[in-house]
Order: sequence, then C-alpha cells, then structure tokens
Amino acid sequence: MAKVRVGVLGATGIVGQRFISLLADHPWFELEAVTASPRSAGKTYAEAAKWYLEEPMPEDVAELTVLETDPKEVEREADVDLVFSALPSDVARDVEPAFAEAGFAVASNASAYRMEEDVPLVVPEVNPDHLGLIDVQRDERDWDGFIVTNPNCSTIQMVLTLKPLMDEYGIESVVVSTMQAVSGAGYAGVPSMAIIDNVIPYIEGEEEKMETETLKILGELDGDRVEFADVKVSASCHRVPVLDGHTEAIFVATEKEADPEEAAEVLAGFRGVPQEKGLPSAPERPVVVREEEDRPQPRFDRDVDGGMAVVVGRIRKDPVFGGLKYVCVGHNAVRGAAGASVLNAELLVEEGYL
Amino acid sequence: MAKVRVGVLGATGIVGQRFISLLADHPWFELEAVTASPRSAGKTYAEAAKWYLEEPMPEDVAELTVLETDPKEVEREADVDLVFSALPSDVARDVEPAFAEAGFAVASNASAYRMEEDVPLVVPEVNPDHLGLIDVQRDERDWDGFIVTNPNCSTIQMVLTLKPLMDEYGIESVVVSTMQAVSGAGYAGVPSMAIIDNVIPYIEGEEEKMETETLKILGELDGDRVEFADVKVSASCHRVPVLDGHTEAIFVATEKEADPEEAAEVLAGFRGVPQEKGLPSAPERPVVVREEEDRPQPRFDRDVDGGMAVVVGRIRKDPVFGGLKYVCVGHNAVRGAAGASVLNAELLVEEGYL
Amino acid sequence: MAKVRVGVLGATGIVGQRFISLLADHPWFELEAVTASPRSAGKTYAEAAKWYLEEPMPEDVAELTVLETDPKEVEREADVDLVFSALPSDVARDVEPAFAEAGFAVASNASAYRMEEDVPLVVPEVNPDHLGLIDVQRDERDWDGFIVTNPNCSTIQMVLTLKPLMDEYGIESVVVSTMQAVSGAGYAGVPSMAIIDNVIPYIEGEEEKMETETLKILGELDGDRVEFADVKVSASCHRVPVLDGHTEAIFVATEKEADPEEAAEVLAGFRGVPQEKGLPSAPERPVVVREEEDRPQPRFDRDVDGGMAVVVGRIRKDPVFGGLKYVCVGHNAVRGAAGASVLNAELLVEEGYL
Amino acid sequence: MAKVRVGVLGATGIVGQRFISLLADHPWFELEAVTASPRSAGKTYAEAAKWYLEEPMPEDVAELTVLETDPKEVEREADVDLVFSALPSDVARDVEPAFAEAGFAVASNASAYRMEEDVPLVVPEVNPDHLGLIDVQRDERDWDGFIVTNPNCSTIQMVLTLKPLMDEYGIESVVVSTMQAVSGAGYAGVPSMAIIDNVIPYIEGEEEKMETETLKILGELDGDRVEFADVKVSASCHRVPVLDGHTEAIFVATEKEADPEEAAEVLAGFRGVPQEKGLPSAPERPVVVREEEDRPQPRFDRDVDGGMAVVVGRIRKDPVFGGLKYVCVGHNAVRGAAGASVLNAELLVEEGYL
Repeated sequence: MAKVRVGVLGATGIVGQRFISLLADHPWFELEAVTASPRSAGKTYAEAAKWYLEEPMPEDVAELTVLETDPKEVEREADVDLVFSALPSDVARDVEPAFAEAGFAVASNASAYRMEEDVPLVVPEVNPDHLGLIDVQRDERDWDGFIVTNPNCSTIQMVLTLKPLMDEYGIESVVVSTMQAVSGAGYAGVPSMAIIDNVIPYIEGEEEKMETETLKILGELDGDRVEFADVKVSASCHRVPVLDGHTEAIFVATEKEADPEEAAEVLAGFRGVPQEKGLPSAPERPVVVREEEDRPQPRFDRDVDGGMAVVVGRIRKDPVFGGLKYVCVGHNAVRGAAGASVLNAELLVEEGYL
Repeated sequence: MAKVRVGVLGATGIVGQRFISLLADHPWFELEAVTASPRSAGKTYAEAAKWYLEEPMPEDVAELTVLETDPKEVEREADVDLVFSALPSDVARDVEPAFAEAGFAVASNASAYRMEEDVPLVVPEVNPDHLGLIDVQRDERDWDGFIVTNPNCSTIQMVLTLKPLMDEYGIESVVVSTMQAVSGAGYAGVPSMAIIDNVIPYIEGEEEKMETETLKILGELDGDRVEFADVKVSASCHRVPVLDGHTEAIFVATEKEADPEEAAEVLAGFRGVPQEKGLPSAPERPVVVREEEDRPQPRFDRDVDGGMAVVVGRIRKDPVFGGLKYVCVGHNAVRGAAGASVLNAELLVEEGYL
Repeated sequence: MAKVRVGVLGATGIVGQRFISLLADHPWFELEAVTASPRSAGKTYAEAAKWYLEEPMPEDVAELTVLETDPKEVEREADVDLVFSALPSDVARDVEPAFAEAGFAVASNASAYRMEEDVPLVVPEVNPDHLGLIDVQRDERDWDGFIVTNPNCSTIQMVLTLKPLMDEYGIESVVVSTMQAVSGAGYAGVPSMAIIDNVIPYIEGEEEKMETETLKILGELDGDRVEFADVKVSASCHRVPVLDGHTEAIFVATEKEADPEEAAEVLAGFRGVPQEKGLPSAPERPVVVREEEDRPQPRFDRDVDGGMAVVVGRIRKDPVFGGLKYVCVGHNAVRGAAGASVLNAELLVEEGYL
Repeated sequence: MAKVRVGVLGATGIVGQRFISLLADHPWFELEAVTASPRSAGKTYAEAAKWYLEEPMPEDVAELTVLETDPKEVEREADVDLVFSALPSDVARDVEPAFAEAGFAVASNASAYRMEEDVPLVVPEVNPDHLGLIDVQRDERDWDGFIVTNPNCSTIQMVLTLKPLMDEYGIESVVVSTMQAVSGAGYAGVPSMAIIDNVIPYIEGEEEKMETETLKILGELDGDRVEFADVKVSASCHRVPVLDGHTEAIFVATEKEADPEEAAEVLAGFRGVPQEKGLPSAPERPVVVREEEDRPQPRFDRDVDGGMAVVVGRIRKDPVFGGLKYVCVGHNAVRGAAGASVLNAELLVEEGYL
C-alpha cells in the first residue's frame, strides 16, 4: 500500500508537535506539509518551531518549509490528501471548512465543529460507525472533502471507560472531577507563577465539553443524525501542577448493579475496531486496569502503550449512586489529542474513506 | 480571667507545631507543657523539634523541656487542665483515655475516638450542642476528664459548607473529590519523588472518614447518642503537589431546588456560635464566597482569616443531581487540624466545661 | 511632614503590584497615580490589573483610574513629585527621560539607564553617596527632574553581602551561581511547561548585569563620575522552580585572609545609612546570618523583615581562592526590585532631594 | 561468550532499581541474585520492592527471591562472580570487604572505600588504568575478590568534562555550584514539604566528595598509589525541585588560554576506552555539546544516550579566571550511579579481571 500523504495544520504548537512526533515513521502516513501562522510561513520547521518534546525533532521534518494555513497554498506546494488539524478553535472555525471544500479530508482535534449535527465526533473504540455522518456532511455541504473530529482530551479518556460499562450495566449519570495537566493549555498556557504550589479550579469551556460531547459519542447514529445518549454528566475541572496526563475521579450511576471486581474485568476486556483491525496506533488494550491501591498516577501511567491506552484503578462501589467509582489517567496530548486524530485517520483508511 | 494552662501532646510534628504557633499569644490559653516520644523527652523543644513553619518558633516555647506523653509525667512537671492532642491515631488510642481518666480535658485532632458513640465530634459552627456527650462520656467511663475531637481535615471544610445548605435546602447526597496538600500527611509523609509532576489518587482511610464523620457531625444529639444525618456521601481522595490547603470539588443533591446565586448568599451569611460569642480563633465569616471564575485556589485562599475560614467559589447548578456544585479550599493544618482543636477548646471554655 | 505624592509607572505587572503593596500605608508616600499601557488606560486599577499577590489589593488603589504612561497625562491628572518605574527596559528607555525632563523624580527599577555615567545606581546601605550624580545629571541633561536607579535583583542581594566583606577584607574577585525564582521573569515569563521538574540555565542579560552593575555600585564617586571597583565578577545564572526568592552561591577571593566565623560577625554587624537614619523600609539588619547547616532557603527566608533583608548562611573557607564561600537568599521582587526603589526614594527624601 | 552472572546488593532502593533496570537484557551480564535488608529477605523481589521507576519491573527479576546481604548466603543460593553494590555507605563499609574476601568482584557505587589508597575510583573514559590498583589491593588485603568503586554522582559528570579540558589546556582550579535532583537522596530522602517552591543549599558530605574524589580520578597511577592531580576544587551543592538529573555550573581556570568554540570541539570530540572498545553501556559520545543558549536542561537532557552521556552547553569565557565557564547536566542515577558501576564492570570484563 502506498502511504497516504498528509499535512499538519498548526504544526508548531504543542499538539502540532505531538502530531509530528506520532507521524514520524508512521507505517501508513507520510508527512509532506506543515502549516503555521503567517509569521512562521517560509521558514523551515526547525526555525519556526521551538521544540518542546523530550524526544528530538524528526530530522526530515526539521527541513520542511512551513506553509501558510491555506488550502490553496497547501495544494500548490504539497500533494496531500488528509490534513490533521491542531489549530486553535477560532482559527479552525474558518479554515477547516475551506480545506474540506477544497477536497481535503480533515482529521481535527479542534473543538469548532465537534458538536455540528453532520460532523462525526469519533473515538474509534467507542463509536466508529458515526463515520457514517461523512456522507451526510458531504451531501449537505456539497464538499469534496470532509471533517472528522475527536473529542476534548478529558472527554476521550472518560468515554473509553464509560463505553464498556454502558454496554454491560447501562449508565444513568456520571459525576467527574478532573485534575488536568498544564500541557492541555498549550506550551505557554499556564504560567509557572499560576500553578506552582497551587490548583486552579477552572478551565474555560472544559466542563461544558465533557457534559455535551460525551452524550454525542455515546449516542446512536440514526440515519443522518446522532441521537444523544440518555445520560446526565456533571463535571468539575481543575488544573494541577502536572506536565502531562489528566487524572479523573469518575462516579457512575449504573442501571444494573455493578460489582467492582467484575467491572474491572469488563474494563480490562474492552476491545474495539482498532484492536480487531490492528490499526497501527491502536493500543493493545484501550483500558488498562491496575490493581494497586494508589494507581493510576499520571507520571507513571501516562505513557502506557505509547500514551494511547488509558489506565484505570481504584474501582469500588459508590455509596451515593449504588454504582461505581474509579480513577482514570490518560495522556492528554497523545490519546487525548494528536493520537486521537491519528487513530481516527487510520480508521478512515481502514473504512475506505481515503 | 486567668488563662487556662494547656499542653500539647505530640508537639514536635507538623500538627504539633501548628498548635504551638496558634497558642503563642493566645488570649485564653497559656502553653505550659509539650510532650513527644521518649527519645525527645528531656531535651528543650528547640533541640527536639526540627521547625517546619515559615514563621519563627516562639521563643518561650523553644526553652520548654519536652516531657514524655504520659499523664503522670505531665501532672508532675506541669500544672495544666487541658491537653491538645496532635498524636498519631495509634498512639492516641492508648494515651488519650489515660489523660482523660487522670482528669485532663483532651481536645484531640486524632482520629482514634472520633466515631465512638459517647465522644463529641465537633465543629463549633456546625454542632456545638454535641458537647452534651461529655457528660455521657464521663458517666459511662467514669472519667474525671474527657475527650473532645474534631474531624478529619477534609471533612471539616466540607461540613462547614454543607451545614448552611442543609439548613436551607436539605441535603440528600454528596459527591466529593479532593485535591489534598502534602502537609496533610505530616512533614515526611509524601516524598518529593512521589509527588513532583504527579497526582497520587489514594490517601489511606480518608474516604471512609469523609463518608462517616460527616454523618455524625450533621446528625442530631438525641439524649445520650447522636442520630446520624440521613445523607449519603461518596468521596474520592487525591494528593496533589501543593504544600498547604485542600481543594474539594463538591456536588450536592439538595432536597429543595437551590439557586446558585441564592446559595452563595446562604453560604456567605452563615454564622455560628463562635461568631456569636466572639471566640478568639473564630473567623469573622466561616465561609468566604469568591465571585471570580477561577477561585478558590489553595495558594491564595488557604490563609484567609488566619487559615480559619474556608473559601468557596464556582457555585453552579449540578446537571446530574439538579442540585449544586462548587469548589472549596481550606487550610488543612489550621482549620483542618490544630485550629479546629483550639476552636473546640475555646468553645469548651465558653460553655463552662473548663 | 506632608506625604510626598507619588505615582507608579507600569503598575499592573508583577513589580508594579509589589510597588502598590509596599506603598499602601507608607508613612512618607501617598500613591496618587498609576500608569499602564494604552489598552489599560481609562479603566480602574481593579479592572486593569489581574492581581497576583497573596495579600489582597489595597482598596483605595482598586478605584484609581489607570493613566497612560506619559508625563503630560500624569501632570494633568495627578499632582505627584516622584514616580516609581516598573517599566520594561525598552519602554523605560523612552519614557523615563521624558518624565525627568518634565520635572519628576524617577526612582527606577528598569535597567535602561543603570549604567549611564551620570545616573546613580544605588543600594542605600552600600553607596548612598552616589546620589551626588543627580546634580551632574541635571546639569548635563538640563533636566528639572532626575533618574535614580536600583540594580538588578540578583545584583542587589549580592552587593549587600559583598560591601561589608570588601570593607573588612578587600575583594579581588567573585564567582556567583544563581538559582532564581520564576517571578523574576514577570507573571507569565516562565511557562509551567518550561520549569516543572527542570532548571533553565539561562536568563537573558542577567550575567552581564551582575558582572558590570556590581563594579559600579562598589565603585567610588570621584567628582562627577564613578570609578568602578577593581573587582572581577563571573556569574552563571539559572532559573529554578521557585516562586519568589533568589538563591546565590557566592565564592569570594578576599585580599586579606578571612575567617568564616569572623566574617559571619562582619556580615551580621553590617549597618548603613538606612539603618542609621531609620528609613521606613529599612530592615533592622540588611544581612541576617543563619547558623543552621541547611539555610538560607528561599521559602523560609525570602520574607525576613518584610523581604527587605537578605539572609546568608553556610559561610566557609573557599579552597580555591583561599577566601570565602557562602549562600545568600533575597526576595527578588521586594529587596531586589520594588522595595529597592522605595528605599532609594526614602533616601532621596532623607537627603533632601525631594 | 557466556554471560557473567551477577548480583545486586541493596537491590530494593532507588539505585538498586536502576541497577536492575540496566541489567535487564544486558548482553554480558545475567542477574542471578538480589539482596536487601533482613526484613525483605525471603520475599520475592516484587513483594519486597516498591518499584519507583517509570519503566515496568523486569518480569524475571520480579520472581527472584531476595537474599540477605551476606556473602555466605549469596554463595549458597546463587552462583555469581560479581556483585554490584547499591548499599548505603555505612552498610557498605562492613559488607563489601566481606564479599571481596569471599572472592567476589565488587563494583560499588557506595562511598565507603572510594578514597582508600588501594581501591580504584574509576570513570572508564577518564582513568581506566587505575584498575591497576586491583592487584595492589588483593596483595595488601589478601583477598580473592576485590572492590572497584565509581565516584559520587556530582563528581562523575564533572570529571567527564574536566578530563578533555585538562588534557588540552591544563587545569589549575575549578569552582562548581550544583543544582541536584531529589532522586540523589534516595526515594524518601527529600520530603515534598522540604522542596516544593524551595531550594535546599546543603547536601551532607557532597562538597567534600567533589573536592577530593576529583583529585584522585584526575590523578596518575604511580606504581601502587595514585598521585593526586594538582588541581583545587571548590564546590557548593544545592538541592532543587527536579526529579532526576543534576545541573552543574562549572568555572575552570585553565593553564593555557582556552577559546570557548575550540573547547566545545574538544569536549564534543572526547572519546575514551569505553567508546574505543565498544563497551555495551558506553554512550557514543561521553560529552554531548548543545549550541542553544538555554541548554542543557535536566528534563530534556538527562536521558541522552540512555542517561549515560553528559550534556554540556553555554561554554563561555570566564572573566575571573580567564578560563572557561559552562553548564553540565547528567543523569545522577544512571551515569552518576548504577550506570557508572555497570560501565566499570564492563571495563573489568574487557580488561580481563573477570
């Protein structure tokens, strides 16, 4: 199979860099184009990007010339079929439709179009069939290309744990309290003066995203629309002095009574399309269950399976709901962002959309 | 009024030091005795204690000779009526009854006797009348002295916010997720290797304490026993890289519908016996409400009113319970430990028990 | 004595806020004007400034209207004789002369004019007589007002310790390695992603400042010029994950042999004009010497005497130089910035320049 | 070649765990025995050790039975020729000679015997010929086995940079100021209460080690003794809130004038016996030179070449000495401890001592 040629929109930021790192030596994708803001355009990527990751910048990417984030420029300068979007949401709102209209497949990590009725919001292990919206979207918008989105970082790791529980026990409601890493706000998003020896109990828009995106992802594709899941979600989101890896305390009211030990097996046994089809970025197990009383911890569990698995522990009875409570850790910048888009793109290839 | 002469049991640890700091220049109490483990006994306090607080060690305490934690030794060497206990729970279990039997009033921060039926577990703004158990206790145990306890640090700050809400709206259930400071584990309790760039989602015994102590404190004294409140509490407790100040995300299912703005007034207007009687350590307002979208934060709010007030913010509707959710910060070592015991002792004086 | 009416230029940043905090209830100064960038002008200070300090914003300042940083505007809107400058250096370069020309006394924390031949660079305990340059400056520049500067934060705390050693033993050379707090870079200067679990071994311009400013401050006023001290200084500057308080490891080659214990007395006994004259912001002792083997530490020693004293410890023989080595901690934002300017202004009043 | 069978003494601590991690899949060594204190003996390694590393515990080690740290027990239960010592110094003082006497080769990271006249203190790139002391040692002590030591963590990374400079320019003296990671003190060595938002300017015995070990390592083997290098070293050692990786600011007075750019080439070009012989743990380049103005940084540079290379940057003229100053980062637990011992053992094999 010839590799699919891809680009990264907004390639110099912290999510953009994660895309570049994940796409280096990818078996199915070849990175051919990187875009950024006009003041970076024309420079080499090495000149334009202050590299933030601990692993070194891939050498061939270092020499790519940064393009403007414009479909005409990308068409002219590169020959790519799919673009990954690491754009900020306000930029994405204008730019992503332009790329889709110009015929590109857009695998977006931005929030701008996640909740649009005809845009798939997909976690491949959870709702791969929602890709069916692509045809609706192209029809309605008269686009050659299309936009596929992945959820917010905090939502992804939670729904990966909710899906198997919903299938087994049914879910009535979810209360979640997050302890989120600073990288989620971008490289300069959280000043050290703000967070050393501190917690910031507010992340703009985050609670709304967790409370609404979850319902769409867990919903059912019914013809040309997704019927939202009949689940109530309440979130409280907080920033803590951690570099990478979001920790979530999750309380679930199940419909059927759930035994913690059995639920551990349900979670550990969860597999989806990415595992069945052997997608290249698929973790062996989407949900890894730890037995220790003090796990998961972000520093130790964020990199499990390259950051693509989420790690769950402390599964116990919840005395309020009579359901379950547990703690979940996932890598916000990998499984929660760039890795999520890459897995979506792999699913697109697998399902014949590319 | 002559000052009440007091001692501190377990005076060299981090809670012990907070006691010493709070008792320096106290208008009602005079610190006359400090005890510690046998290997510290006989030294001066300055020699025995590695001082951890940012304010300097009070000079007159520095010269006190450390006694063994034994009622006979304390009786022989000092003339005190009340002892504050900063002992670890396993030591407290043996030692506190010995002091009570020997006639001392014991104001204890230890967990050993909190849930005993005849031992008051008191937060002065919430359940001052539970001191009525003292007579029951003395009767049943045939003690000259008595034990009064304060709750666990995480519980205290939560019940201070629950009490006014319960009085106004009724409470059915509470879900709470904590982000707790490292000082809660004692000076050497959390190695830096364990917590830098990390969250530890487990604190031994903490969730059980929050789930049971709350019911007793919010319960009603009925003759010689406390009838527990009919409230369900579910806690998930986590350690974060913060020095002092616990942050709690609290979700409350109220019986009556609660409007967030009105609830803010209810919380801000809360006053109790300590405020009415003007107890020396009473904060002007037990619950301070902040309007900013990103407060309370432990670094900025832990020291409000000397660490004796708790600070609440982000009061909003809860979509799961139809109740309220909010964030609360309190100083775990002051309002949550030593300051709680001192306020209890002030209430004992006010109510004539000393 | 009527209070001197003062303003703060660049009042919304982190140094500006320290000025405001130090000027609240100042016995000699009355804060009448605050300036900031054009986009803040016209707002109240409370609206314009995101308050970063742990102590609350003074209420009367909250209501001041922010002015543009322009001498005409300040003259029109307020009646002040002295302005404190918390401006960034590039802005200060243009603006401070305009204020001086318009007749204001400018007490500046900015680096723009520190090394100008006719501008005093003053630490009141070290070189108060350098104020003599004011007359030279006014003469040469034909200004009604004047500019007085204080050194860089890292330099101030070091020269406070070098001065008494130079007087007693003579100094040939100094090697200094700093561990500097993130607040030195301004509120958003150091992203948390950059510094958690890390050290950044570079601070732009800092080493050059320490290596040159020191020579001017320790130099002698000779008529209308300062003759630089014949001392060599070599600095290596590093950022560490500390909120406030710079720590410096200092190695000094003395001319005469210096005994560590005697040097401790020399340092502890150091007094200058601010102490003799009782200037309001003067610390009782400019240099506090600690005997413990593990002090000074920034978290425990940065606030000594309100942050105006520097704390020295670990004074020992240096095996390379045959001189001394020791560790020094000072509050970079108080003694190293705003407090330094305020103390300079107090000296100006004392010496009759205002 | 059959693998050399090895054991690790003191295998459950943080350096012990690094040994285990480095020995997993080692091409020359087979880990056959682990020892610990009596209360761990008899348990499996998985039961006895709280695993601190981010990579998982090797599965075959998990099942090893922990032995007492006693040569008789190790002889009886396992068949090993070489033991790595991760013992605390006071234990090592008694135990290491017992193992050497019993015929074991001991590659020790402990400080107990480093400065003994007949014990090699070796960094393989710097002074591999000092292994010649082994024959002297066996002769004098009448041992079948022997002890070989590696230096203190802070010393190793410094001497790796000093050696090529000494060979090229000669060295008169060295001033070094360290910013050391908390892992250097062992897992529980630095409480989080001590180091969050703080610097501790003291590490017991560390400065003495840097000032003396350096002279031995850089000295010349002259018959049966090492003649110490005629270099003066002055160290100031500090603990900072960093997990792994020591940062050192080094100032060197060279005999010949040294140009920074040329010195960068000298450092980058440095190779030693481990590189020439291709020892398995040898980094490709012992000293990696970075050109960026803000490198090296511990979080980004501690893991270069598996933590076996040290990274140098900011090489510049020193205005005091007329020599050089630069910053150096090395992984204290790998190149500075376990990895140093393993490389020593590989050299022992290469040189025929095993």
